[in-house]
Amino acid sequence: MKVNGQSYRSVWMEGDKLFMIDQQLLPFRFQIVTTSDYHETCQKIKDMTVRGAGTIGAAAAFAMAQAFQELSFKSNIRIEEAIAFTEKAKSDIEATRPTARDLFYSVNRVFDKAIGAISVTGTGISAGLALSEANHIADQYSESARLIGVHGKSLINNDCNILTHCNAGWLALVDYGSALSPVFQAFDEGKNIHVWVDETRPRGQGAKLTAWELLQHGVPHTIIADNAAGLLMARGKVDLVITGADRIAANGDTANKIGTLEKAILAKEFNIPFYVAAPSSTFDFDCSDGSAIIIEDRDADEVHYMQGPDAQDQLCNIRLTNPGSAAFNPAFDITPARYITAYITEKGIIQSHDSINILASDNQGRNS
Amino acid sequence: MKVNGQSYRSVWMEGDKLFMIDQQLLPFRFQIVTTSDYHETCQKIKDMTVRGAGTIGAAAAFAMAQAFQELSFKSNIRIEEAIAFTEKAKSDIEATRPTARDLFYSVNRVFDKAIGAISVTGTGISAGLALSEANHIADQYSESARLIGVHGKSLINNDCNILTHCNAGWLALVDYGSALSPVFQAFDEGKNIHVWVDETRPRGQGAKLTAWELLQHGVPHTIIADNAAGLLMARGKVDLVITGADRIAANGDTANKIGTLEKAILAKEFNIPFYVAAPSSTFDFDCSDGSAIIIEDRDADEVHYMQGPDAQDQLCNIRLTNPGSAAFNPAFDITPARYITAYITEKGIIQSHDSINILASDNQGRNS
Repeated sequence: MKVNGQSYRSVWMEGDKLFMIDQQLLPFRFQIVTTSDYHETCQKIKDMTVRGAGTIGAAAAFAMAQAFQELSFKSNIRIEEAIAFTEKAKSDIEATRPTARDLFYSVNRVFDKAIGAISVTGTGISAGLALSEANHIADQYSESARLIGVHGKSLINNDCNILTHCNAGWLALVDYGSALSPVFQAFDEGKNIHVWVDETRPRGQGAKLTAWELLQHGVPHTIIADNAAGLLMARGKVDLVITGADRIAANGDTANKIGTLEKAILAKEFNIPFYVAAPSSTFDFDCSDGSAIIIEDRDADEVHYMQGPDAQDQLCNIRLTNPGSAAFNPAFDITPARYITAYITEKGIIQSHDSINILASDNQGRNS
Repeated sequence: MKVNGQSYRSVWMEGDKLFMIDQQLLPFRFQIVTTSDYHETCQKIKDMTVRGAGTIGAAAAFAMAQAFQELSFKSNIRIEEAIAFTEKAKSDIEATRPTARDLFYSVNRVFDKAIGAISVTGTGISAGLALSEANHIADQYSESARLIGVHGKSLINNDCNILTHCNAGWLALVDYGSALSPVFQAFDEGKNIHVWVDETRPRGQGAKLTAWELLQHGVPHTIIADNAAGLLMARGKVDLVITGADRIAANGDTANKIGTLEKAILAKEFNIPFYVAAPSSTFDFDCSDGSAIIIEDRDADEVHYMQGPDAQDQLCNIRLTNPGSAAFNPAFDITPARYITAYITEKGIIQSHDSINILASDNQGRNS
């Protein structure tokens, strides 16, 4: 997608350097950061310089490729040591964000592609295979995101008010976005639409990233406190809800940004369709239902403090809460499948449990 | 209630000066501000130096008393001019916060008490009557708040997790509080309780004021982003919800801080009791249902900006949202009566529509 007229992805690799748009500084600063090894990339995933399921997936794939590159620079390494090194790297990368399905999916794809080559052909070939697979994964995310929009835009009518939570735009999915891809494409077709943007406390990804993406693309939108969605629904001002997903269990239960469950329950109460948009890689068919998904608790300081520019445009970190009081900060919640109208994927719109099963066999076929 | 060991009310009058705890600066600064005339007091109500239904009611009553005092200093004023002056003051005060039932109730009580005395006995007597009535109103709020706690604490069992939204503590109701009065009294009885405090965006009254009150009193509590309540309910970590109210219609529909409706719908979905605690003065029997309640839209900058201390403890105002994006900021929402388990009032716990009618006839009797 374009930033000030120039095309970008949220993450990409050139040589042994990984480039990513710093999502911690947006929308107040637009900066590209680079990492030179997988340890640095893990740190950037952990501190949320990159975030969003697909972007984390691609960054993790590139991190795995960086590990294979690092290995190829080591001389006289025994095969057992080489395998141990890549296995250690894989588990380090997997430990950065435990809720993200795409992270595990992508790291394993790169690992599986490259690991077999170590013993037969040496570490150089495996590094090439790893990088090629990581680039392929990033391309697939981009193409999946585009197709999510192709399918999803049919759900958005003219004069439609869409509510979205958190950021599931192109920043979160390499390019195009998941929840926002149908929005961008409906808008590009000339439909008159408007987006209500949940600010999405505590980190404010809606107010900061989704609003930034929509403004860059010219899509009419309004930021609201997360608390205001119920009132808007009661007033008939929300025609549909679209969110992204971090992990979708085999039964359709969906882990997504904290607060998604609240919006889904509200949507059901007001008979408003609630859609989850995600590439099929976000479905975890090894996970039978939502109760098996680990919810990541993040630092309470994300609730206590917030950063933004002051009147002099200096970035400033302020306390928002009573000093001395504790805070609890779960990063995700689980929305049971019964609240979800349909899933918008690159393979089409999936309406029912049966269809998810079809996707599962599909997935099995692709991975085998 | 006590602040650093000394007793305070949220608002009180000494001579012609009105004193109030500055709720804009809490919890980062504890400061008392004063006003010398009703115009200044209106400004303090408008800019939310004082907030909360009962505290606004008392402040408005004192503002009306200040207007009668100001009148008593004017010499050679004609009766028509005097009446016009107080009517102008009354409508100025009423215009400060249109959603607050208690404001209208209190201003009218002071006005009605004092206005009749103007023609017969001059402006001096009317000023005395007005001040006496305003003090009486403040005392009544305090006593009502205490009684709300006496009745409401029976709903709080040992080992209970209570969720509350916004601030309905003593800062909001002169003394004791509405939603928090049962909490304080259950805690004082030695019950093991814990309060989940919704931060309550956009203004953060939960994170700032409720957490401050609970910490001052020693009640165990944890601040959460408004988005996290659904997850906590799904996990069985919320036993009951208690909120305050800004206005309750004759059918029980309740206007309260934006986001209350969301919590009420969630509570219903998870079969958790949802209580509204308020003095009977918050019931508006002239208002048949929630659709007749005006919702105040406040400045979008409350969503865009937030103030707090930086690392050097300097109060700093920062931008939270994408520059260039618009925001919508409704201050209240309406929770339909069907989501409310019961109302906790100074007259007891009211379970049903019939009981509200009893309160209505009661109220009729008291006001006549």
